[in-house]
Order: sequence, then C-alpha cells, then structure tokens
Amino acid sequence: MERFEVNILGCGSALPTTKHSLSSQVVNLRDKLFMIDCGEATQLQFRAMKLNFTRLNHIFISHLHGDHCFGLPGLISTLGLLGRTAELHIHAQPNAEKVFSPLLDYFCKELPYPVIFHAFDPKKNMLIFEDRTLKVSTIPLKHRVPTAGFLFEEKPKSAHILREMIDFYQVPFSQINAIKDGAGFITPDGQIIANDRLTRPADAPKKYAYCSDTAYTEKIIPIIEGVDLLYHEATFGENERTRAKRTMHSTARQAAEIARAANVKKLALGHFSARYPDETVLLAEAQAIFPNTILANERQSLKL
Amino acid sequence: MERFEVNILGCGSALPTTKHSLSSQVVNLRDKLFMIDCGEATQLQFRAMKLNFTRLNHIFISHLHGDHCFGLPGLISTLGLLGRTAELHIHAQPNAEKVFSPLLDYFCKELPYPVIFHAFDPKKNMLIFEDRTLKVSTIPLKHRVPTAGFLFEEKPKSAHILREMIDFYQVPFSQINAIKDGAGFITPDGQIIANDRLTRPADAPKKYAYCSDTAYTEKIIPIIEGVDLLYHEATFGENERTRAKRTMHSTARQAAEIARAANVKKLALGHFSARYPDETVLLAEAQAIFPNTILANERQSLKL
Repeated sequence: MERFEVNILGCGSALPTTKHSLSSQVVNLRDKLFMIDCGEATQLQFRAMKLNFTRLNHIFISHLHGDHCFGLPGLISTLGLLGRTAELHIHAQPNAEKVFSPLLDYFCKELPYPVIFHAFDPKKNMLIFEDRTLKVSTIPLKHRVPTAGFLFEEKPKSAHILREMIDFYQVPFSQINAIKDGAGFITPDGQIIANDRLTRPADAPKKYAYCSDTAYTEKIIPIIEGVDLLYHEATFGENERTRAKRTMHSTARQAAEIARAANVKKLALGHFSARYPDETVLLAEAQAIFPNTILANERQSLKL
Repeated sequence: MERFEVNILGCGSALPTTKHSLSSQVVNLRDKLFMIDCGEATQLQFRAMKLNFTRLNHIFISHLHGDHCFGLPGLISTLGLLGRTAELHIHAQPNAEKVFSPLLDYFCKELPYPVIFHAFDPKKNMLIFEDRTLKVSTIPLKHRVPTAGFLFEEKPKSAHILREMIDFYQVPFSQINAIKDGAGFITPDGQIIANDRLTRPADAPKKYAYCSDTAYTEKIIPIIEGVDLLYHEATFGENERTRAKRTMHSTARQAAEIARAANVKKLALGHFSARYPDETVLLAEAQAIFPNTILANERQSLKL
C-alpha cells in the first residue's frame, strides 16, 4: 500500500495557545509533500515532525487570514538558507502574490530558488494541480473572506502483478506494464491467459478533503462525497452556535452533519477555538451524529 | 529592589531548530514590558512564558532580517483579537513601516488599536525612548544591513526612607518626597536632621545592553561601559572565525573580549548558530576571556 497520510502541524484557530498551533498540514503521498496552509511557526512544526524540506514543492493556501499564511515568509527564508534551488509553488487566490511580494522582495532578495504563485478562483470547484499520481481541486467554502478547501485525489492505480503467475507463464518483462494496465497474455503455444489470472485488482484510489475555514454549507457535499478522510473545521461547540454563525465558522455537530451527508469514511475535527481547554465536548457532539470522528492534534499523522 | 529582568524568548540564529527559537527578548522593568526583536513565533514564546500582553507597549527592532521581525504581523493580529485598544509603538529603522504596512493594511484592516512606527537612525547612538524610570538608546552595530543594539538604562532612583527614623522624628508625610530627593528635616524645636540620618542611598541605576547582530566592533565599548548585563551575539566559535567575519557575526571569544574591555558585570551569549548542538564549547571559549559569562536560553529570566 502506497503511503498517503496527513500530518497535522497545527489545528488551532486564530489565537494560538500553548496547546494548539496555527493552521497547517502536510499531505504525504508516496513521499512527496504537499502543504495546506501555513500559519506562523509552521516551519518549526515541520522540523519538529522531522519532515523533509526537500520533498516539499507545493503549498496550498485556503484563504488570506493571517493564521493560515503568516508562516510563509519564514518558511521561504529558511528554504533559501538550506540551499534550495528547486521551484516552490504557492497555490492561492489572486491577492496572495500582491500581498506577500513586498515583504519577500525586501527580505528574500537573494533567494537561491524561485517562488511561483499560482492563482485560483476560490468560488469555483476546479482542478488546480495534477501530477502522475495526484489531482488537487478546490472546494468553495463559505467564510468571511474568499476561501477554498482542497480535495486530494489519488489517480487510479495499476493492478498488482501476481509474481508467481508471471513466473509460471514466463511472461517477458517487456509486457509487464501492459498487463498492469489490463492486457492479457498469449503464451508461445497460443494459449490466451486472461488478465485476472495474472493480476489482483488495484487498491481503490484514496481521497482526502480539507475544509477550513467554513460555515455550515451543504454545497460541498457532492464534492467531498465518499472521501476516505474529511478534515472539517469545528471551531465551536453547540454552546456557541450563534457565534459560529456570525463569524462564519462551524460547530462540531455541523461538521458531523456534513460528514454523514457526504458518506465520508472518517472525520477529523480541527481549527479549535482557544476557549475549549478540552475538546472532548466537541468530539462527543460530533460522534452523536457521526461516530467515526476523531479530534485532530499536533504532530499526529493520519493514515488514509 | 525594583524588578528589572530580561526574559529570553528566543536566542537562536536565522535557522530555527527544535532547541532554539528566533530572536526575541522582553525586558521587564517594574512590570512594564519592552520587547526587543520579534522573530517568527515570538507570540507563542511570550504566551508560554506567561507574560502579560497588556503590559507590552513598545517593541524595538534591531534590524530588518526576517529572523528578527517576522513575528510582528502575528503578534499584532493577536493583540487585536485580545481586544487591545492601547497604542503599540514599534521602534525600528525607517524602512520597517514601508515594508510591513502592505501586509498589515491587508490583514489587520479592523485592528481595534493603533500601531505607531517610530523611525531611528541605526548609525547613531541616540536616545529613542524615555519615560519616568527608563531611557532606551541605540547602539550602532556592524552587520550586513543597518543594525542597532539597545541600551536600557534605569533613571536615578530616590533614596530609601528609613522608616524608624521618620517615626522617631515624627516627620510629617508631606515632607517625605523632599527627603527622598535629598532634603534634610528641621524638627519643631529647630534641630536640623541631615538627610543621611533619614535615608539610605538609592540603589545604583541598572543598565542592560543588547548587541545582536554584529561583527566584532570596539566602537560599542564606550556606550556599553560598565553595564550590569550585556547580551552579545556569539553566533560562532573560534572554529568558524572566518565565517563569522564574512557573515558579519561574532565568535564567543570576541563577545567576551568586548565584555572585558567594557568592564561589564555579566555577559550572556546568544544568537547561536544551528551548527552547535551543544553550546558549551562557546561558553568555554568566552569564559577563558571573561569568566562571568553564561549561555542564554529560551524561557530564561535574567535578573539584573
């Protein structure tokens, strides 16, 4: 099974506490790292989790509130000090480049690598990145400023070769890739071997959805339908439902209602308000609706 | 004895490690807090040290390298979320306001308090702040960009009243302040009581000097002469003397030479390069020259 995991660097909300750091996660798909959000001190958490800076090439920023992006200048500087030469790609809405450039131009004049901003429209559900194994698309969210979540989807994988059958039929190496992609094999004496004798089916591609910050919105349900893991913000509990609505955040119960309606496999709650010294109240409220819920926590690695 | 202490929030150099945070200190003089430098994650260290955000009104920035100021936007945002209404004064060189304003204008549009930048010329030794008990002046340093250290000087204090003598001579309360300032007392029957019968001398005003970042420069010696505590950068050991010169930093030995030449009472080394997992080598090199040397460390509170 190929590695697909979500490392939680910070799952607090705007006011950092000694318990929770500011928003940031690193998705690890087969040892390529993709950062989502970059609150202040993200580089410290990255280091503390012993993640590898050279494996990081893409950063996705959900929205331009400081607690989701004030870690960018420090991280960019540090990558320069570490001698990086590879491009760093930052995917964010159009204003991001304009807002950060004066600072980067001043402090990172001699950066040994290029920082490339890619703008997306947070109001649309669109593909913003793909490579050989992964697609990333935006999830329009409902917040005080334009905000998008991100859907990480593995591309369909090749079938697994059954090594003992390949040996048995003496299949030449040159035909292995075709068989992985579904072809059968014809032996030298004309016998036709069906593909399902030579392979077992590929693992189903996995999906991860990040939805923070957002008020309760059912519009995201078709986009995140059936994901293996949903990280959904749960800034407040039911006791602060009015405040959640006013500040355009969600309660834990609302996050669970979304998870249930979207038939996700697992829900991780995060973006906790500093007012909850103990989030088990949030967990209980969510589990009443959607039992397979967990609390995100710093330095945690969630396997898909 | 009135409180005068230096809280070390971060004493690492540009590359943060899991051991050392980025540069920041908070001088506490009689429960007023004065911040020096504000590297990324300073607000987290401030909170971890249980310092009181409402006591902080002045921030002094030595120079515009990111590891000394990237914590400003997050700290400023957090003070707003905490409901601050009092002015926050940032003392820095002229470019600081220009560089940070675009970011603050975008992210802190609804800040409930004013942030006021005060520009100083880092090439001059000049008074940049004073109140009833304190003077702060700049110490021109020698670095790759314009840089100033800071000298914190307590103003002369009043003599201590000898309570038992005041009672003995039945000195009326209305005359206490004059006696604290050096006056004698004439009893109702005309006897002259000299001031030194009624008081013991005030504690000598204390001085603290912060010198980071800087190459070895003897020009600072007359400015920091005799301070009670000198924090001097010691980015490198003697094994990296060439690199220290090239990057315009100091070795621990050079810091100690400055401390000895300036007759300071105590030296704290800081701004440690990430290459030293154990700074005792730096301590030993400094103590060979100036024995009363210590290593700064995070969450340490140095009493003057």
